[in-house]
Parts: sequence; structure tokens; C-alpha cells
Amino acid sequence: MTRTHRTLETKDVRPGTEVVLAGWVSRRRDLGSLIFVDLRDRSGIVQLVFDTAKGTTKTAMELGDELRSEYVLTVQGTVELRDEKSVNPKLETGRVEVVVKELQILNGSKTPPFYIQNDVDVDETVRLRHRYLDLRRPQMQQMLMLRHRVNQSLRSYLNEQEFVEVETPILTKSTPEGARDYLVPSRLQTGSFYALPQSPQLFKQLLMVSGLERYYQFARCFRDEDLRADRQPEFTQLDIEQSFVPLETFQSMMEEMLQRVFQDVLGVEVQRPFLRMSYAEAMDTYGSDKPDLRFGMPIVRLDEAVADTAFRVFKDAIAAGGTVRALVAPGCAGYSRKQVDDLTKFVAPYGLKGLATVAVTEDGIKSSIAKFLTDDEMQRLVSAAGAGTGDLILIAAAEISVVRQALGALRLHLGEDLQLIDENIYKFLWVVDFPLLSYDEEEGRYVAEHHPFTMPKWEDLDKLESDPGSVRAQAYDMVLNGYEIGGGSMRIYQREVQERMFRALGFTMEEARKQFGFLLDAFEYGTPPHGGIAFGLDRLVMIMGHGKSLRDCIAFPKTSSGTDLLMSAPSGVSEAQLDVLHLSLRKGKPVEPLV
Amino acid sequence: MTRTHRTLETKDVRPGTEVVLAGWVSRRRDLGSLIFVDLRDRSGIVQLVFDTAKGTTKTAMELGDELRSEYVLTVQGTVELRDEKSVNPKLETGRVEVVVKELQILNGSKTPPFYIQNDVDVDETVRLRHRYLDLRRPQMQQMLMLRHRVNQSLRSYLNEQEFVEVETPILTKSTPEGARDYLVPSRLQTGSFYALPQSPQLFKQLLMVSGLERYYQFARCFRDEDLRADRQPEFTQLDIEQSFVPLETFQSMMEEMLQRVFQDVLGVEVQRPFLRMSYAEAMDTYGSDKPDLRFGMPIVRLDEAVADTAFRVFKDAIAAGGTVRALVAPGCAGYSRKQVDDLTKFVAPYGLKGLATVAVTEDGIKSSIAKFLTDDEMQRLVSAAGAGTGDLILIAAAEISVVRQALGALRLHLGEDLQLIDENIYKFLWVVDFPLLSYDEEEGRYVAEHHPFTMPKWEDLDKLESDPGSVRAQAYDMVLNGYEIGGGSMRIYQREVQERMFRALGFTMEEARKQFGFLLDAFEYGTPPHGGIAFGLDRLVMIMGHGKSLRDCIAFPKTSSGTDLLMSAPSGVSEAQLDVLHLSLRKGKPVEPLV
Repeated sequence: MTRTHRTLETKDVRPGTEVVLAGWVSRRRDLGSLIFVDLRDRSGIVQLVFDTAKGTTKTAMELGDELRSEYVLTVQGTVELRDEKSVNPKLETGRVEVVVKELQILNGSKTPPFYIQNDVDVDETVRLRHRYLDLRRPQMQQMLMLRHRVNQSLRSYLNEQEFVEVETPILTKSTPEGARDYLVPSRLQTGSFYALPQSPQLFKQLLMVSGLERYYQFARCFRDEDLRADRQPEFTQLDIEQSFVPLETFQSMMEEMLQRVFQDVLGVEVQRPFLRMSYAEAMDTYGSDKPDLRFGMPIVRLDEAVADTAFRVFKDAIAAGGTVRALVAPGCAGYSRKQVDDLTKFVAPYGLKGLATVAVTEDGIKSSIAKFLTDDEMQRLVSAAGAGTGDLILIAAAEISVVRQALGALRLHLGEDLQLIDENIYKFLWVVDFPLLSYDEEEGRYVAEHHPFTMPKWEDLDKLESDPGSVRAQAYDMVLNGYEIGGGSMRIYQREVQERMFRALGFTMEEARKQFGFLLDAFEYGTPPHGGIAFGLDRLVMIMGHGKSLRDCIAFPKTSSGTDLLMSAPSGVSEAQLDVLHLSLRKGKPVEPLV
Repeated sequence: MTRTHRTLETKDVRPGTEVVLAGWVSRRRDLGSLIFVDLRDRSGIVQLVFDTAKGTTKTAMELGDELRSEYVLTVQGTVELRDEKSVNPKLETGRVEVVVKELQILNGSKTPPFYIQNDVDVDETVRLRHRYLDLRRPQMQQMLMLRHRVNQSLRSYLNEQEFVEVETPILTKSTPEGARDYLVPSRLQTGSFYALPQSPQLFKQLLMVSGLERYYQFARCFRDEDLRADRQPEFTQLDIEQSFVPLETFQSMMEEMLQRVFQDVLGVEVQRPFLRMSYAEAMDTYGSDKPDLRFGMPIVRLDEAVADTAFRVFKDAIAAGGTVRALVAPGCAGYSRKQVDDLTKFVAPYGLKGLATVAVTEDGIKSSIAKFLTDDEMQRLVSAAGAGTGDLILIAAAEISVVRQALGALRLHLGEDLQLIDENIYKFLWVVDFPLLSYDEEEGRYVAEHHPFTMPKWEDLDKLESDPGSVRAQAYDMVLNGYEIGGGSMRIYQREVQERMFRALGFTMEEARKQFGFLLDAFEYGTPPHGGIAFGLDRLVMIMGHGKSLRDCIAFPKTSSGTDLLMSAPSGVSEAQLDVLHLSLRKGKPVEPLV
């Protein structure tokens, strides 16, 4: 018996059609002379009916009796319409059923450790240990298929635009900059190591030097970082680079690509051009370089409004070079003392000692700082905040970076808490004009914010020596719903600019050559102007598929300690394996495996 | 000035069209008042003309004077038809030229270490060290683009057939079977190691357990082997797996896929169905499990024809269980003693002590063994070999494996030497019915020829205990022009068969569980019948692009010692990097880096 149809297709065939289906037993109800089985395959579920009165063979009936959850089978039978009263509106195939004639059990199954259904209430470690069963759940399968469709849609756009997909090495060279590399000891050259790439950055720039003009790759990248809750040691980025293209044209193509993928995969129309916001504005208005624009609630500046008050907290903050800023929480004027305390606790980890509150109620203004401000001053504050009746103004006074971070986080917290966020809209923007350099107090020098090959803005180039901190980069992040989904820059391609950049970073050319020699060599043989971007594919899929974590978007993810619970990796290896690598494990207590 | 056209497009625009081009100086001829520059971009080359009489600005003329090979520039100018007599038929754009108005030099270039042209006579290490320049050569760019097109064509077929692309981990677990793993020390769990995958075999089988039904991936694979001339430590395979599909249907789909890619990329029509040949027949007739069928010259069996001769060499070989077989070399009857000696030397490394020769000339038969055979016997031999006038019969007598290997190699040697091979035809076949097991004298047990999850042929299943060596596998290789381009099998999915297989391999179930526990666990939860294949993408591209080595088909390849000459990887790492991994290099002389 060879499968002729997928289960989902039974809803579209003529009643009476004979089909052969294959799949798994999702559910089985035995009514004695009748057996009902929900048969699941990749496309969905259809109900099988075993009924000798309708032509089920005796053998099939007996085998039907043996069926249990997750048994694998093929059936031959006839698609029939259900009675009006037994139609199941919850099932896509709910208007039909398949009356079984013959049955073949292809394989049995032990009772699974959890139900194969969408909402499964089981510890994630159990799911990861039995990932092959977890992936059998329809929502996980749908996520894999969504990822596939996202992938193919992105490709199709890039192929149309004549980008060439090129694979770059996984076994490559360790570089001292950036995050920590994963190392791979070489056996043929003991004492030497390959490194897994943190990104194909250098390769893609070399491909531009080689005249490929338009490159892309779905590139696996690796960072040996201390893993936070939602990070993976290996991840996939869509890596793109292009020569001879102005920044605006490139950004516009990337917008078109995202528009395409949202249309293709979700049927959602994304508006273009995307909003552009400078890094400075994003930080000022949303306290974040990746603002979630699905709701408003901007941070408002009260420095001028409160400049003349006698309130010491405000005065001292401003005098110390800090700032007084606020959020206006709509409809929260009636917040209890406890609710306000909770918000204060929420911002404490960001270094903010407290929140002053001003509630604009129908009965007038109620404020924690009422006694420090005159009525006039209070009115000025409320008006500067733009608050109306029912609103609660939450005021922070401290140094700028603390206020931004705290209010940025509080804004997101309130947005969620007050249900201001529509999960079904997608707000894209470009954050641009990032600073090129930032001063590293520890190292006592400027360091590159992006990487040392990022092009300064032409109009800021003159300040590279005189005021390095004020130079903006030709760098850009694409932000979606509060996540950075992509980031890139135009690259330096002229030797003279590159040398000035290295000097700004405090490198001698000798040091620069030692670290990036082969790239600097390459750059001397006719490097075209070029730039690019890299998108975090796992995150994009997570947002599009409404996943709860990156782990939901990766077929075989690792835990936060980097453990593959299914395979039990990493694991010990034999002494012989270390012998050929000329390596020894050091003495001392090895770190206990974490989960 | 922003590029409006690619150079190749100039051949299709109306004369007089104003264009902006960008690219590299391929060649420059300065005739004083005239300058000609061949401008190269990804699409090709077009001639630029600098001529103030035709409107080139004075500035552009001066800049044109500065141009040297591999300078990067943009030009604005007008496409004009060339005079009839200056048309260049070797250039796709040879009927036109671009009269330059304005020029901008985007970047200079040092003199490259070799010419950027197709046939470059320079040591490969120089090319690899400057790979970014090597890749600028048109034939290398074309290979990258061919690879891209192969890739996308394969994808498009698989997507249409509803295969889902899934990425599987690169950081995975070391397994004791197969080739040597590359290891990656874990920092968070010191003393433990990840391994880079030799193939996603286990993951793709797990995806079938998870009900995905149709999977593919362009998977990076890693083997830490002693590299032969044309092997790479990392390579790409197109990995495919499918559930609920009979072997024949699956093979037929794969044929359709290959037919599609040859049509799409090369415009070559491949005939289907592909020839099927058993392993036994391939070995017998071509002395190879990957026969090149672009020419004939099968190995012929002479055992019966020579059975009654008095010639000791033949008699002894047959008596010892060996065989007498021959190749018929067309048109070689006139080979000199020296030419025959060269062939004898060629087969010596395969363990063959000599070749008996029979030349069928117009003047009768001339043979190195004339004195040992009667005329009748000689006639019988010639007739059994199927030789005609002008042919040279080359006879080998020894044990079967030696004769096969030697004549198989000699056949390929002669095929090339006699120019019997048409480089522009593509002969596909499936080699099937491989033995499931082979006896390993060293280990004193049977070992799996493919892997322990390969399904035996149903009709041979009964012999798994009684005569394991005779059991054939449901395994298949796809062979093209003498290369194995793909290999796969149907997998065991029933616990009972798997246990019998492990017993045949001499494993206790405990040992099997220790090695493959998580897979055996998975197999207990409703495993569907499934099977798949993996294609060597690098090799397929090499054949399709007529590359000379795998290195020609990989953007950034490694040498035979696993060295990336461009990046200088592998390389030493800092003590601090080893510290965090809790690893020490052993004392003693490290192996010298090889090139």
C-alpha cells in the first residue's frame, strides 16, 4: 500500500474516492463494533472509521483493536462525508472521514512521555530530551515549515536581484577581536587551532574585493559566550554584502526584501519606506536603540519645566549634568501605593533610586512631590508631560544613561502590562547614525562600536582626529517590534581612511597589520566601495511565528549551558582522541555539567 | 555617479544611450590622444574609449592617464557602435564601445601577483594565498555562479516536492563509528567536547521520527582524515530524507531532480530512467563500483575460453580460485613493446604481475603467449574476447579482486589515453544491491558497509544469521561519469530487524545501546519507514563546471594539509584561550605545518 494522499487532501476529494493514507495515531476511541482513530500526518489530521458494516475487513478490525497512540500505519479506505451532526468544525478535515478497508501497522510505539498536542504542559527539558516527539507537535512542525518558507522567500528575492550565494569556511582562523571563539584543534598541525566563525564578515568583504558585487549566505555563526536565557552557541544569520551601491539604495532593497517575506509567508502588507530614526533620537525618546513602536508612550523631557522648582532631587540631578524625564502611563492615575511601589522596584536594577509620581485625576492632581512644587510648577510639569485626566506621570531624575535605560525598560513593561501592544502588527524602522567609536575607560582608548572597518559618515570624517566621540558611522540596524533583527554598515574601502580609523583606535599600523594583515593586503588590490548587513534568522522567525524563545525556532537547540539534551553533547572523549591532538586536560575539578 | 548598467548590458542598449558603469581596469592601452580601457565587472568586459574629440572631459582624460590594471572606477559615457573593422568577435560586447565623458577613480591597486585572466600559469599556492584575486578571474566567478545556480535549481525542485529545509547542529556529539571527528572543547563544561558532524545522518533520521516526512539540507560536513590530493576537511552535501516512500519512487524523484538541474544550469537533457546496475555487475564488468559509462571497453571473462589450455599462468590462477579476464583495446594492435610495457607498469601497483597480450592484426595474431596456446585455443580466446582486426587484447590472470581493480583502472587509463571519452556527455547510473556487511579480518567480525541502520533487502533478510556475507542492502549510489555523486539507503525502522542487525555485527544490545542509545530510544516511539540520500555538492559542481579539482569549486578551500593559505589557519592561540578550556598542549616537537 503506497500513500496516495495527505490527510489534509481528503477534504477536497470527491466523496467515495479511494485513498491510501499514512501517518500516526493521534487518538483512538473504541466503541466495540466501531473504532475511531484520528490519523495525523504532516498536513494535519483526519478521522478514520473502522466499521465492518461499511466494509472494514475483519483483519483490519482486529488490527484496529491493537492500535495505540503514536502507532504508525497505512490505511486504504474511502473518503465519505460525515453526517451533519458529527461534523467537527475544529478540524480542517472535519466534514469528512475515511472509512477503512485495509490497515497495515508499520510500527508500534511506547507511550510517549507527553501528549503530542499543541499546548503541552511539560518541563522544557523533557521536551528537549525527546525533541523528536516535541517536533511531532503540530505547532513545532508549523514553526519548522514557517522557517523554511521565510528562508525560501528571502532567497527568491535575493536571487532575483542577482545576489550569488557563496559558502564560506566553518574551519577558519581565530581573531583576537569580538566575542570568544570556539576552537578546533588541528591534528595534522598539532599545536594549531582552527576557530569557528563568529560571522563571515571578513570573507564577505574579501568576496567584494574579488568582484562578486552581490553576495549572500545563510551562514552558521558561533560565539562562545556565557549564555543568557535566550541565546544559542550557534545561530544562523542571513549575511548580505554588495558593491557599488549607495547606502539609501541598499536600505531600500532590504526593505523590499522584508516586505516580500512578510507578504509571502504571513500575507501581511508592510509599509515602505521604513521609518528612519537616529540613534540619538531612539535613545532619547524610547530609551533604547531598538524601540518597539507598536505603541507610543515616549519618554518626555521635563528639564526645562522643572528647572526653577525648589525640589532638590530635580535640581541636583540637573546640576550634576543629569536630567529629569518621564513616562505618561495612560489610565493609571488610580494606581495604588502598592502598584507604584512595584514600578519603583522594577526600575531599581537599572540604578534609579525612585520614581516621582503625578496622577492627573478628575479630583485634581495627586503627587508624591506635591509639597515640593508650587501649583504653577505642577501645572507646568503636567503640561510639559502632555498628560491628561486619568494619566499617571512617572518621573525619573538621575544621570542621562540611567534615566534612559530605566524609563526605556519601564516603558516596555507598562506597554505589556497595560496591553498596549497589538501582537499582530509589525513596526519596522531603521536606527541610523550610530556613533562610530565609544571611549573605553578601562582600555583608555576609543573602541569601534561596530567593527574597525565601518565607514564614518562623510560629513563627520574631519572630526575623526579632533573629536572622535562625535563621529557618526554609516551603520544601521533594522528594528522590528523592539528587536534588532539586522545590522550592518558601509565599509571603509580606502587605505587612507582605514589608516585614520586605526589611528583613532590607538593602533599603530604595525599592530593593525598584525591583526588584519591579509585583509589590509587584499584592500590594496582594487577594493570597490561596499557594504552589507546581517539578519538574525532565528529571531526573525521567532517574531514571525510568535515563538516564545529562540529554542522554539531551531530544530535541535541547546540549553543555556550549551547542552544538547537529546544527544548529550558536549561529552567526554577518549584518551586516544586527545593523544592524536597532542592535548591534555588539566588537573583539577572539572566544571559540573549544567542543564 | 551611480551605476546604471552592467558592462554586458551595453551590447543590448540603443546606440547613443548614456550609461554609468563601474568595475575594474582589465587592460589599458594608451595611444596618446586616445586611451582604450577594458572595463571588467561581474557580467563581463566592455571597451571604454577616452577621446576628447568625442566629448571626454579634460579631467577624465587626465584621470584616464593614471589608470592601471585593477584600478576601480565609475565612468559616465555613451554606448556607441564600433566601426565594422574594429569589432572584436572574442568579446560579447565586441560590437560596441563606451565613449567616456566623466571618470571617477574609486580606488587604486598595486600590481597583482598574477594576471586576472582565465588561463593563468601560476603556482596554486600563490592563487590560494591571494584567493580574492584568483576569484576575480572570470572562470572562477563563473564557477561560483554555476554553483549558485545548481544550488537554487536543486532547491526549487525539492521545494516543489514539499521537502522542508531544516538546519541541524554543527556543534554536536562525538560518535565512535566512522571517520575521525573534529573536536571542539567546551568552556562551560570543561573536559567535555562537541564534535563537528561527519554528516547529519542521525538528525535526519530523527526528523523522520518527528514526522517531518520530507527533509533536505545543504549540510556542511567535516572529516578529520589524512587528506588526499583532492579532499577537503569540510565539504557540503545535499542531504535528503523521506518517509513513507518506496525505494523506486524515491530513486525516480532523485533522477527527476538531477534531470532538472542539468536542464536548468547546462541546458543538457538527461535521459530517464537512469540505468541500474548491481554492485556485482559493476565490479565484474568495469572493475569499479562507480563505472564511467561514457565509453565501453567492458572487462571480459575468459575463464571458460582458456580452461583447457596448457598455459600454466592461466591454469594456476583458475585453480587457485582466481580468474582470467581481459580488456580489448580498440585500434591498439600495433602497440610497440614499449607501449605494452608501460601498460604493464601501470597495473603493477594494483598487484598484477603482468599482462598477456594478443594483437589481432591484418597479418594474423601476434601474442606474447602464442607458444603456450594452440591455434584453436587462440581463436577461441579472441572470439570470447570479442576482438576484431586492429584490437589488442590485454589479459590478466590472478585473484578476482586484483584482476578487477587492475583492469578497472587500466580501462579508465586507456579510455583517456585513446580519447574515448566525450567530455560533454553525462552518463548517470544507479549502482544497487551493495553487500550489507563485509567481513573485517582484523576485528574478526562483520562490519556494516554503509552504516548499521541500512535496511537489508527483504528477500535476503532470512540469511542475516545463516549467511551474513551474502545479504544485500537496500542501498544505492548515484554515479556520474565515473564519480560517485550520491549515496544512500532505506533505513531499518523496526526494532526486531535492528536487533538482528546488531547481532550480525557482533554487538550485544547493551553495546549497541551505549553507542546509539538516543536513536534506539527514538525508534521506539513510532518510527515510519524512511530512507534517503546525500549528494556531494562540491563534486557535482566540479563535474558540471569541468573543474580540475574540488578546490576550483569552493570559494575558500584548504590545501591537502588542511591549511587556509589566505587566512593562515589553523594558527597558534594564546595561553589564555587554552586556560579557559582547561587544556594544555603536550610537550614535544609539534608537527611542522605542511602546505
